[in-house]
Amino acid sequence: MARWQPNASERLVLAALDLFDGRGYEKTTFIEIAERAGLTKSTFFRHFADKREVLFGGDTMAGLLAEGIETAPEGATAVEAVAHALDVIGREAFTPERREFSARRRAVIAANPELQEREALKGLALTASMTEALERRDTPALTACLAAQLGALALKIAYERWSETIDGRDFGEYARQILRELQMASDHL
Amino acid sequence: MARWQPNASERLVLAALDLFDGRGYEKTTFIEIAERAGLTKSTFFRHFADKREVLFGGDTMAGLLAEGIETAPEGATAVEAVAHALDVIGREAFTPERREFSARRRAVIAANPELQEREALKGLALTASMTEALERRDTPALTACLAAQLGALALKIAYERWSETIDGRDFGEYARQILRELQMASDHL
Repeated sequence: MARWQPNASERLVLAALDLFDGRGYEKTTFIEIAERAGLTKSTFFRHFADKREVLFGGDTMAGLLAEGIETAPEGATAVEAVAHALDVIGREAFTPERREFSARRRAVIAANPELQEREALKGLALTASMTEALERRDTPALTACLAAQLGALALKIAYERWSETIDGRDFGEYARQILRELQMASDHL
Repeated sequence: MARWQPNASERLVLAALDLFDGRGYEKTTFIEIAERAGLTKSTFFRHFADKREVLFGGDTMAGLLAEGIETAPEGATAVEAVAHALDVIGREAFTPERREFSARRRAVIAANPELQEREALKGLALTASMTEALERRDTPALTACLAAQLGALALKIAYERWSETIDGRDFGEYARQILRELQMASDHL
């Protein structure tokens, strides 16, 4: 009876966040998430492997970062390509209407060690995705590695600042500022 | 009946490696590890939380890195302090007689996704430990973060090269060379 459900993924994420937020992550089951979203168990599993994955959006972010690096202007340096990828993230994923959601998501993750572990591993996967995309642009291996680390750090810090502050600045602005700060810091190593 | 067992931790690690290596990580139980080491279950649990932890040596590495940064000469830059910490690791942990063990350990981890995940998380804990130690030396936050990332990368790459090569160079030499390469790469970001 599986039918395509409009925005099923989005509905599941929001339902999960409400439940994790209200009664806690441990006490919430994937069945309750599906029910609250008005969807079936099998729809849940078409989108996510388990309840822990609901807050981590599959491979979307890794794909967007790789795409952003690949579509950066031809002569761009490694860090400029990374900055371009963070702009793409700001346009496609961390849009202004996602800010409040992101702040709630961060609070739920901060309250649970298992989710923190999952987030840390996702961060490493994003770094790997950026490193590989830079290498496909013929960036030398160590430079690619470092630029990707800078990008991952900028992504993390920008996400924190952007989700906590209501000053109208968009994610991309935060990310670019932090990348500049990181580059200045790298001159004083 | 708990008695202090000489080198219990070391014996457990070697027994685990033999078993993981021979019959595979999944098929080995912590009881078999304890038996092979000639020790009891309770001795096992005094040293490690579970069989996955046996290859990751508790908090020794994080402590050595922090200590190495704290005892670096007063005027050392952030990266020089990190290099000093990697020298300490070479003297205290990755000594020449550990090289063969380390090569076997790496092969076991490479064959198992669960162990790879654990290693990735340990890597993040080591980065955090170095960042905090640098901040205690009044290194500015972003510089501390970056220098610790450089250190973690150098640690990882040096460990790979050192454990794979029998050319008599010690771990510290590899680590310093890679740190230099990383610093040069950071000039071309």
